[in-house]
Amino acid sequence: MVDDTLSGMKMMLVICDGMGDRPVAELDDKTPLQYANCPNFDWFAKTGICGIMDTIAPGIPPGSDTAHLALLGNDPFEVYSGRGPFEAFGIGMDVRPGDVILRGNFANVDENRKIVDRRAGRIKEGTSKIAESLNGMEIEGVQILFQEGTEHRAALLLRGEGLSSEIGDTDPHRTGCCPEKAEPRSPSAKKTADVVEEFSKRAQDILKEHPVNKERESQGLLPANYILLRGSGTAPKLISLKEKYGLKSAAVVGVMLVKGVCKALGMETIKVEGATGGVDTDMMAKARTAISALGDHDFVLLHVKACDVYGHDADARKKVETIERLDEMLGYVKDNISNTCVAVTADHSTPVSVRNHSGDPVPLAIVGPGVRVDDVTSYDEISMAKGDLGRIRGKDLLPILLDIVNKSEMYGA
Amino acid sequence: MVDDTLSGMKMMLVICDGMGDRPVAELDDKTPLQYANCPNFDWFAKTGICGIMDTIAPGIPPGSDTAHLALLGNDPFEVYSGRGPFEAFGIGMDVRPGDVILRGNFANVDENRKIVDRRAGRIKEGTSKIAESLNGMEIEGVQILFQEGTEHRAALLLRGEGLSSEIGDTDPHRTGCCPEKAEPRSPSAKKTADVVEEFSKRAQDILKEHPVNKERESQGLLPANYILLRGSGTAPKLISLKEKYGLKSAAVVGVMLVKGVCKALGMETIKVEGATGGVDTDMMAKARTAISALGDHDFVLLHVKACDVYGHDADARKKVETIERLDEMLGYVKDNISNTCVAVTADHSTPVSVRNHSGDPVPLAIVGPGVRVDDVTSYDEISMAKGDLGRIRGKDLLPILLDIVNKSEMYGA
Repeated sequence: MVDDTLSGMKMMLVICDGMGDRPVAELDDKTPLQYANCPNFDWFAKTGICGIMDTIAPGIPPGSDTAHLALLGNDPFEVYSGRGPFEAFGIGMDVRPGDVILRGNFANVDENRKIVDRRAGRIKEGTSKIAESLNGMEIEGVQILFQEGTEHRAALLLRGEGLSSEIGDTDPHRTGCCPEKAEPRSPSAKKTADVVEEFSKRAQDILKEHPVNKERESQGLLPANYILLRGSGTAPKLISLKEKYGLKSAAVVGVMLVKGVCKALGMETIKVEGATGGVDTDMMAKARTAISALGDHDFVLLHVKACDVYGHDADARKKVETIERLDEMLGYVKDNISNTCVAVTADHSTPVSVRNHSGDPVPLAIVGPGVRVDDVTSYDEISMAKGDLGRIRGKDLLPILLDIVNKSEMYGA
Repeated sequence: MVDDTLSGMKMMLVICDGMGDRPVAELDDKTPLQYANCPNFDWFAKTGICGIMDTIAPGIPPGSDTAHLALLGNDPFEVYSGRGPFEAFGIGMDVRPGDVILRGNFANVDENRKIVDRRAGRIKEGTSKIAESLNGMEIEGVQILFQEGTEHRAALLLRGEGLSSEIGDTDPHRTGCCPEKAEPRSPSAKKTADVVEEFSKRAQDILKEHPVNKERESQGLLPANYILLRGSGTAPKLISLKEKYGLKSAAVVGVMLVKGVCKALGMETIKVEGATGGVDTDMMAKARTAISALGDHDFVLLHVKACDVYGHDADARKKVETIERLDEMLGYVKDNISNTCVAVTADHSTPVSVRNHSGDPVPLAIVGPGVRVDDVTSYDEISMAKGDLGRIRGKDLLPILLDIVNKSEMYGA
């Protein structure tokens, strides 16, 4: 008697960004997940198989890009080559293997080139016109593509012979000082560093006179008169989820860097009305979109950012509230899935006591036909370490889900 | 105070092929191991240290060959190079590094070369005479060795310069169509594909007139008039258990492919009267042989196939019955070992709901002097995940056993 539900089963991966935490004094030494009232999270723990997961490796704080590369079946130590390429994928640039890409910020400097604001007064409008004026240069035979992202974000793409991503940031990550010179980190990166320096100079000249900036100045706003660059990386050779696993896949995700990873892996990214990638995002709209996407996709990723923000802000109460909002969203997921294997987890911990990503493992529950249900009843970092999944690595999650839905391939005979 | 029993301690590895499973509806949502009455399995859980094991890696369904390579201390991703070589080792061919080997089937095709039966009416007799007629050819300077296995099984070995295992199967794995052409999967494999094509043609001519086939036709049996080939692989460079760990080792195993892995690692394989490699095998005879082999070996592997068959057949009740027969066998093992570290496990799960190998981890219990006995009391997939071994990889099992019997080597100073 074969379980027919296995064929055609779907997979859904819910990622609550930065949800993992440590015991917090003001929450009676509980973690936000332990403290929050979250019956739907607990339903996933009770109904599924539980465990904890080192997204990258024990003790290593994951980035958003490396974490998602791992959760989507890659060994980040093998494939990761810097943030830039994923930013560029995220904003929809035509990224090709070998391209060198840097993340850019529209910034403001004073007459002495001292940085006043790394985000040019959180500029929101006019960036596409500014980007246009910087796009399409050629320097030392290298083709320059430049494109704006959301708000103050942009990407610089270099295409040509003899490039290397081994260059330092021009963004010093603070204000009051001058931008850094693009430093080659290896002899073979000298040309690339020179091209980046020359781009920075030409950009400064162009931006000084740019009509968008003239307009901003007339309104008393900081002009975006400098491009700060960081996160140099070479476009990685990645195998799409379609090619690697035969999966038609989609991602419901607001954060550009995560979206970039999904696009780099050939996933369709679906826009959601009301989804901002921030704390005010419409989670229920995202969940509805994700559930609906299951109709014509084998695999859907649903990513919600908000928890991470309150980890960075060290706001334990708001993190608890956010978890309770996520719980509502999970209730909707629970009530509207059928014939689907659902994993609920985080990409990393962002403990309020750390105010940054930490290497603490994240909780993971997997619900679906045929899973070996264990006796864990509470969805939190402490209880779930006792679950039957044990302690796994992020890169092993997708193979485990594929195996549950009977889409794994035997290794050997 | 050193435990003197450690010196001279033996090791035994009991592998119940395909025993791992998932909750089954008709067994009250228990796994066959949970449902079966198996006091001796439970004794091993109670008396030993327990855990679960990913023979290859989480979520990856192991083959019989890759699983046993791992359980015998190898990283299958490093050493595995296709099924053919292990089939050839199994039937006792003189396999040398660099040989390219394919698994063969004695098959039947009609006058239009359409496949009627991939096993030539499950031919049992006369195959050694047929094989003899195909053995010893030379094609394009390549030496051809051909040898029969059990029943319809055989192996084709190519030895010579410029060979590659990068060729496709000629066996289309179904009937009613013609055999495939041996396709080179890389430019360097063209010669090998040509040799295989030429062998297939010459074999067809020889088999058409072969006296064994004439005799079969006169009896109304399907003649074995075609050789279907698959699983091309290059003979791997393996280090024997003797060389790697100083172990004098033996295997009690019926299945040819597993026997091949054991032989490739230099293990003595011991024939057992009444052992068939099938569901009707005399398990008690195998256990007696294995226990007796401990007398003059450091390490004995005891492999019993039956559970796997009922997983493939999706017969939950028969799988439960088989586990109860295995339990009797384990009772004998329990009562007749002394000064021996015994591990009881499976090579992979073959869930009745999947009808095939799955990537679900397998249960593992290790009993022996000095092991850290945990509080697991039931031998099954769910309970044992809580054991003190945690979740380990197959390739780590043999080092763990060697360490328990004090035969491990320090790494470092």
